[in-house]
Amino acid sequence: MTTPSNTRSIWRAPNARAVEAIDQTQLPYRLATARLESADAVIDAITAMVVRGAPLIGAAGAYGLAMALDRDASDQELARARAALLAARPTAVNLKWALDRVGDAVRTLPAGERADAAFAAADALCEEDVATNESIAVHGAALIRDAWTRAGKQRPVEVLTHCHTGRLACVDWGTALGAIRKAHETGVAVHVWVDETRPRNQGASLTAWELMEHGVPLTLVADNAGGHLMQRGRVDLCLVGADRVTASGDVANKIGTYLKALAAKANGVPFHVAIPSSTIDWSMDDGLGIVIEERSPDEVTHMTGVAADGQVTRVRITPEGVAAANPAFDVTPAALVTSLVTERGVCAASKAGLLSLFPERG
Amino acid sequence: MTTPSNTRSIWRAPNARAVEAIDQTQLPYRLATARLESADAVIDAITAMVVRGAPLIGAAGAYGLAMALDRDASDQELARARAALLAARPTAVNLKWALDRVGDAVRTLPAGERADAAFAAADALCEEDVATNESIAVHGAALIRDAWTRAGKQRPVEVLTHCHTGRLACVDWGTALGAIRKAHETGVAVHVWVDETRPRNQGASLTAWELMEHGVPLTLVADNAGGHLMQRGRVDLCLVGADRVTASGDVANKIGTYLKALAAKANGVPFHVAIPSSTIDWSMDDGLGIVIEERSPDEVTHMTGVAADGQVTRVRITPEGVAAANPAFDVTPAALVTSLVTERGVCAASKAGLLSLFPERG
Repeated sequence: MTTPSNTRSIWRAPNARAVEAIDQTQLPYRLATARLESADAVIDAITAMVVRGAPLIGAAGAYGLAMALDRDASDQELARARAALLAARPTAVNLKWALDRVGDAVRTLPAGERADAAFAAADALCEEDVATNESIAVHGAALIRDAWTRAGKQRPVEVLTHCHTGRLACVDWGTALGAIRKAHETGVAVHVWVDETRPRNQGASLTAWELMEHGVPLTLVADNAGGHLMQRGRVDLCLVGADRVTASGDVANKIGTYLKALAAKANGVPFHVAIPSSTIDWSMDDGLGIVIEERSPDEVTHMTGVAADGQVTRVRITPEGVAAANPAFDVTPAALVTSLVTERGVCAASKAGLLSLFPERG
Repeated sequence: MTTPSNTRSIWRAPNARAVEAIDQTQLPYRLATARLESADAVIDAITAMVVRGAPLIGAAGAYGLAMALDRDASDQELARARAALLAARPTAVNLKWALDRVGDAVRTLPAGERADAAFAAADALCEEDVATNESIAVHGAALIRDAWTRAGKQRPVEVLTHCHTGRLACVDWGTALGAIRKAHETGVAVHVWVDETRPRNQGASLTAWELMEHGVPLTLVADNAGGHLMQRGRVDLCLVGADRVTASGDVANKIGTYLKALAAKANGVPFHVAIPSSTIDWSMDDGLGIVIEERSPDEVTHMTGVAADGQVTRVRITPEGVAAANPAFDVTPAALVTSLVTERGVCAASKAGLLSLFPERG
């Protein structure tokens, strides 16, 4: 299995009015790309998780807005398309940030110039995303190297991660997984405990696939196993991403993150959260105010995989007609977070910590 | 879907030299029974989880020893069969207890009387199991009723449970799930959050199936969701079972239990563990000394369910060749356990608490 030669998860051919993206619903079974030619197609891709991961969703949304303006560059369409795209994933602050950025770039322009300017703004946003994520990777890798040094470099440093935060979640590179890849590529012996991440299994599929692709040693475990592993001293640090971080350092991330943070705290294991600063919601302090998306119960009651005949097959794993709930995210209080890893460096998960890196927000 | 008219999960026809048991690997898709005619068949049934749940494994083991003695009643065979049966599930102290009880009942008898006496001892053990479990259910139901009363009886009391602890795990009735059923049957409005319980999905399959059968309202959730639910005040109490409880109240139970206990503690949610006293290992204080069974990685990488064509189908949910680990149990320290619910009543999860109910162990 190989990746596109450009190594990006979303890309636009020169002068194209559409983008192509890796269809992440097809992984880890096959590598396929989806061509997105309209804002509606982008919305569908976000909803169906063809594109997923907060930074990538932002990039896709930016292109979606450009495509909408390519058809109708009116103020009304700008407002309508922005609202429609934003509704595709209300929890992801990156999406709002990206849409605002494209909107701000075109709002004062005459209608005839808006589409080109919007595509250019989306392109620039993607380039910055790559640079931002590599910076996060460098800072995160330093934490992993430090842990390896503390372990005397006699054994691999043991990192536990939840959900998927690799290059497939961004335009390129990744956040938490990017840091792990950077550590591995710069000579740190690292082994990753990969949480399966029910109900959508992003860990079992995307994280496992990406780590294998990069040659990083990993062991997949059920989400239930992490507490046991930490209790028995088999995890040196946890490193995850986030969908939103509040100004005081509360972390909204994939459901189950909070349980791992509790186990880390109870067992003295550092718990780090790697994020681009676009993930920080400076308007909000208390993470418990974040609206948690409730996704389809089908994600809990059904599972997709490859059957013995090689066909990708969906099976029901419950009694017929069972009721199920599917909250997609949870909130980890800042008190459980050892540090935040951003493109500007590492800080405490607190208002003071964040302001030390982002004084312009003070 | 109906259950056998006898409502038991294992039973012996009068004078039969074999037993029948519900084949729990077929649930929740179909109700089938397995006929077990030898100790080897019992070992296979335990290993393959045709019979599962600590008390039921004990009962099955007792019958397995009787069947072995029915073929060869020598001291050598008694020792060999006991060791072989015990190795089928080393973590389950009930199995050792049941085998010892049958062994003790026959050891001083002449060989010609051993098999009949062993079957009689196994039968008696089953009858006591039913009575024991109904007592646990009565005491546990009182805790649920108390929580409902504290909630003003204006809404259902919200109980979270992990894995499966219903009548299918015992000869009849159940432990934690038995208490929920008893509460429901005695007029308490109860709603159950059912943890899926990866990787074997006992919650999504057996617990959901059994609660639906009893008409108890339930909502299935991914194992990752419980912390979020507790943080948001949507759980009044947790009630789980255990595979082994140490003399000081540490609890070995299905992997993931520890994470829920941490979340309960952090959010002020009572965490109760319902057990027959045969689950208590009086010889051990520190739960971290318990050997945790490592099961096949296939349970993590593959999943079984019903496909659209109605066939029970196994699918691989990971990239091919991924490494996976599968610790089957974890240990919840006594400090996280609000109380133990036994057939003699409710006590603190501590040496003093247990001795208050079982003074003969002091």
